[in-house]
Amino acid sequence: MKALRVHEYNKPPSLDEVPEPEVKGPWDVVVDVGAAGLCRTDLHILEGQWEAIQHPPLPYVIGHENAGTVRAVGSAVSNVAPGDLVIMHPLVTCGLCLACRNGQDAHCESATFPGLNVDGGMAEQMLTNARSVVKLDSGLQPAAVAALADAGVTAYHAVRKAAGVLFPGTHAVVVGAGGLGHIGIQTLAAITSAQITVVDRNEAALELAKGIGAHRTVLATSDVEVEKAVLDATDGGAHVLFDFVGEHGAELLAPKLLRNRGQHYVIGYGGEVRLPTIDAVIREISVVGNLVGTYQDLVELMALTAQGRVTLHTRQYPLEAALDAIHDLEAGNIRGRGILVP
Amino acid sequence: MKALRVHEYNKPPSLDEVPEPEVKGPWDVVVDVGAAGLCRTDLHILEGQWEAIQHPPLPYVIGHENAGTVRAVGSAVSNVAPGDLVIMHPLVTCGLCLACRNGQDAHCESATFPGLNVDGGMAEQMLTNARSVVKLDSGLQPAAVAALADAGVTAYHAVRKAAGVLFPGTHAVVVGAGGLGHIGIQTLAAITSAQITVVDRNEAALELAKGIGAHRTVLATSDVEVEKAVLDATDGGAHVLFDFVGEHGAELLAPKLLRNRGQHYVIGYGGEVRLPTIDAVIREISVVGNLVGTYQDLVELMALTAQGRVTLHTRQYPLEAALDAIHDLEAGNIRGRGILVP
Amino acid sequence: MKALRVHEYNKPPSLDEVPEPEVKGPWDVVVDVGAAGLCRTDLHILEGQWEAIQHPPLPYVIGHENAGTVRAVGSAVSNVAPGDLVIMHPLVTCGLCLACRNGQDAHCESATFPGLNVDGGMAEQMLTNARSVVKLDSGLQPAAVAALADAGVTAYHAVRKAAGVLFPGTHAVVVGAGGLGHIGIQTLAAITSAQITVVDRNEAALELAKGIGAHRTVLATSDVEVEKAVLDATDGGAHVLFDFVGEHGAELLAPKLLRNRGQHYVIGYGGEVRLPTIDAVIREISVVGNLVGTYQDLVELMALTAQGRVTLHTRQYPLEAALDAIHDLEAGNIRGRGILVP
Amino acid sequence: MKALRVHEYNKPPSLDEVPEPEVKGPWDVVVDVGAAGLCRTDLHILEGQWEAIQHPPLPYVIGHENAGTVRAVGSAVSNVAPGDLVIMHPLVTCGLCLACRNGQDAHCESATFPGLNVDGGMAEQMLTNARSVVKLDSGLQPAAVAALADAGVTAYHAVRKAAGVLFPGTHAVVVGAGGLGHIGIQTLAAITSAQITVVDRNEAALELAKGIGAHRTVLATSDVEVEKAVLDATDGGAHVLFDFVGEHGAELLAPKLLRNRGQHYVIGYGGEVRLPTIDAVIREISVVGNLVGTYQDLVELMALTAQGRVTLHTRQYPLEAALDAIHDLEAGNIRGRGILVP
Repeated sequence: MKALRVHEYNKPPSLDEVPEPEVKGPWDVVVDVGAAGLCRTDLHILEGQWEAIQHPPLPYVIGHENAGTVRAVGSAVSNVAPGDLVIMHPLVTCGLCLACRNGQDAHCESATFPGLNVDGGMAEQMLTNARSVVKLDSGLQPAAVAALADAGVTAYHAVRKAAGVLFPGTHAVVVGAGGLGHIGIQTLAAITSAQITVVDRNEAALELAKGIGAHRTVLATSDVEVEKAVLDATDGGAHVLFDFVGEHGAELLAPKLLRNRGQHYVIGYGGEVRLPTIDAVIREISVVGNLVGTYQDLVELMALTAQGRVTLHTRQYPLEAALDAIHDLEAGNIRGRGILVP
Repeated sequence: MKALRVHEYNKPPSLDEVPEPEVKGPWDVVVDVGAAGLCRTDLHILEGQWEAIQHPPLPYVIGHENAGTVRAVGSAVSNVAPGDLVIMHPLVTCGLCLACRNGQDAHCESATFPGLNVDGGMAEQMLTNARSVVKLDSGLQPAAVAALADAGVTAYHAVRKAAGVLFPGTHAVVVGAGGLGHIGIQTLAAITSAQITVVDRNEAALELAKGIGAHRTVLATSDVEVEKAVLDATDGGAHVLFDFVGEHGAELLAPKLLRNRGQHYVIGYGGEVRLPTIDAVIREISVVGNLVGTYQDLVELMALTAQGRVTLHTRQYPLEAALDAIHDLEAGNIRGRGILVP
Repeated sequence: MKALRVHEYNKPPSLDEVPEPEVKGPWDVVVDVGAAGLCRTDLHILEGQWEAIQHPPLPYVIGHENAGTVRAVGSAVSNVAPGDLVIMHPLVTCGLCLACRNGQDAHCESATFPGLNVDGGMAEQMLTNARSVVKLDSGLQPAAVAALADAGVTAYHAVRKAAGVLFPGTHAVVVGAGGLGHIGIQTLAAITSAQITVVDRNEAALELAKGIGAHRTVLATSDVEVEKAVLDATDGGAHVLFDFVGEHGAELLAPKLLRNRGQHYVIGYGGEVRLPTIDAVIREISVVGNLVGTYQDLVELMALTAQGRVTLHTRQYPLEAALDAIHDLEAGNIRGRGILVP
Repeated sequence: MKALRVHEYNKPPSLDEVPEPEVKGPWDVVVDVGAAGLCRTDLHILEGQWEAIQHPPLPYVIGHENAGTVRAVGSAVSNVAPGDLVIMHPLVTCGLCLACRNGQDAHCESATFPGLNVDGGMAEQMLTNARSVVKLDSGLQPAAVAALADAGVTAYHAVRKAAGVLFPGTHAVVVGAGGLGHIGIQTLAAITSAQITVVDRNEAALELAKGIGAHRTVLATSDVEVEKAVLDATDGGAHVLFDFVGEHGAELLAPKLLRNRGQHYVIGYGGEVRLPTIDAVIREISVVGNLVGTYQDLVELMALTAQGRVTLHTRQYPLEAALDAIHDLEAGNIRGRGILVP
């Protein structure tokens, strides 16, 4: 079959002919890939940035946002059967460690991460397991949802954790209305009743935000202006601020934009949070880290999507045109998410 | 009556003869002070450090950890009567703002703070209100509990917030076994089933910690040694770390001592928390600020104290010897808490 | 001023000329009534059914769903001023007991309930206190919101308590789409992402339900049909069932309509819940009682209403026509809620 | 190997020579049974009461509270190895359904229940799977803990669910200080700070309760006396009542013994809860069903046991003397739990 593999960092991946994956273990599932999302993390992988963290054996197949049709299943698989349409949770987990037992899939002690440390989904087929697959509602197609498998479930995870305090009259502030923020805004509007204020440097992104749930938008011209505008829009500060940027200064905005007892949810990364302990104490504010979502999060996100409450803008490329897609992403020429279709 | 008043910063306070406070408003309560705790914050007040934050009118009476006997009450007071033994929550709150309505007394929009911005309790009598007073169980005496009014309820507040995740098999780490840490350890042992590991630079403090609930202790010789010892004692890191120091490098220990999904509770202050966003994300760790406790926290702490599960080491001084007490505190010559008894 | 007073049970109330209420206590607030909701409870009061529970001194003014304009305030009132538009929480609470301290206003140890045990709002003016009043957003008018003061906040309270488990993919079932159910459906749609199935005996009520948030409706022809239709609509049973009827057999439906770990929220009353302990155990289902909401609930409900997410159908009567309104209510001739306007 | 099998209901089981179980599936685990608890449910099984619920194929091996030493493991088992001491969660679960994914093992859609619907542990060996086994701390022996596998984890599950509201100053009431109540009292004392009041008809049981954590005891002479004594002991009623009896009138006590907002936890069964909806509403009380605990509950209970905070009185019998043990249990001649040791 065809598969897009990394052979060497800082070189383009190549579309190779490789053996098809096979069911070996009892929980194995082989999927005919229907769509694989292309994401900025893929660019970082190609640059070698993830080598130190995941040290995958080269060459290997990238693609960590995958959906498709079940092709074959192992002897112990009871939750899906060949022919089922599925989306894959990004982690392939063990089901035995305490993290798995308590629904904290992302902290599984012995997970693999297809597309990051083992072969992923930019191929005609991929190997996953029974604990990764979520069956799709009949109205959903792989190409429409694949990019929700990682980016989407990460944004949703943070929103879902915060939802319990976002009741009517509260204020949520979203910093960064890009790929993740875009899902964050839609899911905030769908599962909370907070007023949503969106901050971004890009006017077009703010315009889009207004159409998908933002009640107010703030153009990020300077920190002083942002502070003034957000405190005004939120009647004194956010109850929860979602930072989908996490670098370039965005990670330092939160203490200025939160009200007392407010919470700074960190989703984007790159920078360093700095919080004087006196502020943490006197104002009783918190900083909350957020990783990719749980399996249950992905199930819920698919329910929202089937209800038409979350939609992604996508641009499809055939798998053969993967290098074009990568080039377009690098050049900033893709509106929404690039999707590779084998 | 006699009262210890600050007339000028960086000069000793003086024991003045002043008019007795009077009940004026309907919720006012005048208390015959039975005991007033002396705390390091009082030294900082005398040095002028709180001027910028609280800007009290000089001269004024210090003393913010107070207990005593109700002397007179306003027309609308129904919860206490003259003769009742009471401890005072440090804040005198309004009962009308949303923070008050939801039990978040420390965030009242129009509270006063006797001893910090209005006359406090180092006097024969003090003025407070009906919302500040907690009746004491018959077995409790003002001199034994006064220091729990501020330091105690602050430590308890943090422990209480974290208690929901400290179930059997989890690990709590306490950094700093001084005044607040001392209460933190006792209340952790009383209301959670976590294994408690205490870190301090002082061997005597660790010895004391063992007697009041610590399961393991770690002498803080170097950061490297602390990390090694704590990870070993906690089988891979704390679920919750309580930082009662918050400065001198203690505030930077948490990320090294927490396990994934762990929480860094900030109670002490002075330094700055620094947390790379990538760590917050990949490890899903959090930083949680903690202010003084709520009224309900003080009620619960008094219940624990009446049950004999929290005890304070104290050294009593007559109010007339207040300057001696202050001198002893500055010189590090008080074991436990200094208590002024009018 | 004019006031509608009960003089004797089972006789019509009379519109009397009575003295205006006066501010006496420091927290008192006198309100020029703008609108008073008429509710089935008022009929029960006139029939004497509440005598045993509330034993009000006769004659007294009924009306427990009130909104209007502040006329005068006591010396200690800081949250409203004459001229402010307000809605009144049904209970006038003390602010000192532990229930008040923790936001559980409905369980205040020394509350009064205007319209039930002291003079209420079917009058030109009424006496309340500072802890009862919620300021109205500038877009809200008393006549549009008065009926939310009791019926509305009761329905919302139950929905709010359950909201934490009603995430995407879950099923809420509403039994009874009358006055309270009507608010329940709107607030479920506003603050949760559950699929909403509504059960009622009345086709017109179900038709209305569809327009305000119900995803599916079930006409209650027989218990067997209801069970079949609800299990089908909910893919195996409700996660939460809200029983706004509570009598005539509706109170016995829940165990049949819930899935394992489901919760039966009781809001309507009259009948008796019967639950074999073996069902409670094997299926781990629960029964949850619900009283009128908290002050915070009313604040949130007003926020939703100001956002246009909750609307009431009302029919206004001048206070002078109160007996006509009562007659219409008894005769079933009011669609929506009857509102008296002094 | 030897195994105690039921051949016909209402006849004694017989100790048969049967084939040893074998590892067939990838997650299978075969355990050399070290101890199997004998429980009243076993008597009910022999009487045929569980036939309708579990309809096991006869003959089959009973014994659903098991601990022992791992003998062999399937190809996918990574969490235990031959030689490990383990206790078995009573359910053998799938790890794939949403209940399993969210830690709700007891609600697994496709679990087996060894000893109830497939071969259990009153044998020299038994078959279980990797998701059932919890490794024992080196200080714990199978005979000391086996009975915690079902009875223990059921009592603990209820206590753990309620723990979040049982803070200092609250009152827990335990109805029934028998086998489950005995664990309930110890775990309440270990993980909550509630005052514990125990109600039982048996003076010896109350005497025992005092030694393991009960602060007060009430001899159940009559409902009127119980109500009076409990309301006095709890200062107005329980915050949470744990009903370990569930029949013979105990299931009707709760509304009289709860304070407003109190919760009736149902663990024992047989009778029917009856709750007038008006009481549920006006007092806002709840009824909460409780099934056997989760895997995480068993992990926590073993942690408490290893810490010496939970102990069981047991009487050991060799497996060959199983009929004597059953006879002694029927005759009420076993103090504590009977344990069969192969």
